[in-house]
Amino acid sequence: MKKIINDVETLLDESLHGLALAHQDIVIFNDSPRFVQRKTLADKPKVALVSGGGSGHEPLHAGLVGAGMLDAACPGQVFTSPTPDQMLAAAEAVENGAGVLFIVKNYAGDVMNFEIAAEMLEADNATVLVADDVSLPADHSTGRRGVAGTLIVEKIVGAAAEQGHDLAACKALGDKVAKNTASMGLALTSCTVPAAGKPTFTISDNEVEMGVGIHGERGREIVPMATADELIHQLTETIDKELQPKAGQKVLLHVNGIGGTPLMELYLVFDIAAKYWQQKGVDIHRSLVGNFTTSLDMTGCSVTLTLLDDELTQFWDAPVHTAALRWGC
Amino acid sequence: MKKIINDVETLLDESLHGLALAHQDIVIFNDSPRFVQRKTLADKPKVALVSGGGSGHEPLHAGLVGAGMLDAACPGQVFTSPTPDQMLAAAEAVENGAGVLFIVKNYAGDVMNFEIAAEMLEADNATVLVADDVSLPADHSTGRRGVAGTLIVEKIVGAAAEQGHDLAACKALGDKVAKNTASMGLALTSCTVPAAGKPTFTISDNEVEMGVGIHGERGREIVPMATADELIHQLTETIDKELQPKAGQKVLLHVNGIGGTPLMELYLVFDIAAKYWQQKGVDIHRSLVGNFTTSLDMTGCSVTLTLLDDELTQFWDAPVHTAALRWGC
Repeated sequence: MKKIINDVETLLDESLHGLALAHQDIVIFNDSPRFVQRKTLADKPKVALVSGGGSGHEPLHAGLVGAGMLDAACPGQVFTSPTPDQMLAAAEAVENGAGVLFIVKNYAGDVMNFEIAAEMLEADNATVLVADDVSLPADHSTGRRGVAGTLIVEKIVGAAAEQGHDLAACKALGDKVAKNTASMGLALTSCTVPAAGKPTFTISDNEVEMGVGIHGERGREIVPMATADELIHQLTETIDKELQPKAGQKVLLHVNGIGGTPLMELYLVFDIAAKYWQQKGVDIHRSLVGNFTTSLDMTGCSVTLTLLDDELTQFWDAPVHTAALRWGC
Repeated sequence: MKKIINDVETLLDESLHGLALAHQDIVIFNDSPRFVQRKTLADKPKVALVSGGGSGHEPLHAGLVGAGMLDAACPGQVFTSPTPDQMLAAAEAVENGAGVLFIVKNYAGDVMNFEIAAEMLEADNATVLVADDVSLPADHSTGRRGVAGTLIVEKIVGAAAEQGHDLAACKALGDKVAKNTASMGLALTSCTVPAAGKPTFTISDNEVEMGVGIHGERGREIVPMATADELIHQLTETIDKELQPKAGQKVLLHVNGIGGTPLMELYLVFDIAAKYWQQKGVDIHRSLVGNFTTSLDMTGCSVTLTLLDDELTQFWDAPVHTAALRWGC
């Protein structure tokens, strides 16, 4: 393992300290229990958005805390769920009279711990579950995983909360975005978790893990290495089958790098995915390309599609000011 | 070599096509000769900023084209200088009555080709040379290389041009930023150029290339693998010796990922570098952390410091709207 670290035990806190120092106009880092919160809370009651999950997916979620998006994020250790006390403390720190909406990726540990925190929290609260990874069937025993579509949910609901929509409206909106969002990824190489010190999985030079999870979980199958067109079409076809966008449908197309793949390749992936849907008459109305939901140093990418309407587009376009996503302010 | 590509011959154009499609509100891609330009030119005469260089450093430079920054970027093939006809065509496309400022990283091929283009261009023009890599001595035979500090020059001069400063003022400002900026990087692993198909250099698991160039050029020395504190202090000490910031000096600290290193490690690097200068009383006034001047999939990072004054800070804070850097608009 070759990484720029001092000690696997201190890496997470040192890194979060660096994040808070680099973005001290946006966030504050609370180290015990561990959470990152918006520096300036809204001056009138506003639904507080709280997310979190295992670390190693940066900038998700701590890099998405700020005006127009999350109010707090709870980072667990690398690929490990945060604990209920983190979630409870974060929720209590940012709740300001309009309740708390938890945005939770669908993993057993995250779901269980957020449920415990939600039960302990005295303030009104609700939860949006994100399960956008369509590489697994909808009736899979563990349910589908929450992956890069989580950012889309956080951005759109974050804008609604900022504009004063109440808890029930934000919860309904989050469910709507989650339902209209589908993702699928592929990995060329494994990541290496610092505490493990060796690659999570092995894969040969002429194979691709199709439908990989963001922790390096097995996907739907290992396929032979192929051209970018062939590989990416396996992603777009699965997503298309799920969401079935019609000609004229406006969509947001998000190409996400999972850590180690150059931006040059990610823009090629965007080109392929955009053309795939444009040839069906689908309107690529909004786009996002970059490393947002990562898996440490894994190489590969994911494609996420969200069906848009005027409401969702307006919320997507609304101002956001976080470490990793910023526009309009 | 394991990459998401169709063909090494078509990769660059497909990728630039994807960039232009993803950011069609910001840029236009001209494929022959190859350059990326701002979609909307200023409505009154404004100094046009043109940069460029070998590809493989994305988002530099094409991802930095847009309001408040570059007017055009000329991408060469991977790690290969663009040609004078690209630079000339780009300059002619974006010149709108106030002359052209070329921003050139100090590499022999880039310098020579930009010089030829500058001579051929009929409009008034000037050139700012960026040579911020202090891993090499100032009197090195090829001169110091231009690396991650180039982005700082482009941002600050871009703001001045947007605010209506003339060619001479922009040139003087660019020289001032370049003089007050120093960078140094390190690599843990090599990158793989698509056309070569194998790693550019080899390095053992317990060694670090200290002072590496952004094309994988040899640095000042190979050092043993060490803690992040020890490695990063080798960068900060060299930069500190060069710029000698005094207590109270305001600085911009930029931690740049060179491609394959997780954001979690980059924020740790920021924490270490910021503390190094804070302990000397230096004021970390502005910051930038992320993958901006990359070397394909190489792992490692660089640290860049710019000495700020009120003028530079105001230009740094001014609105910018590009694919990779966006705030204030």
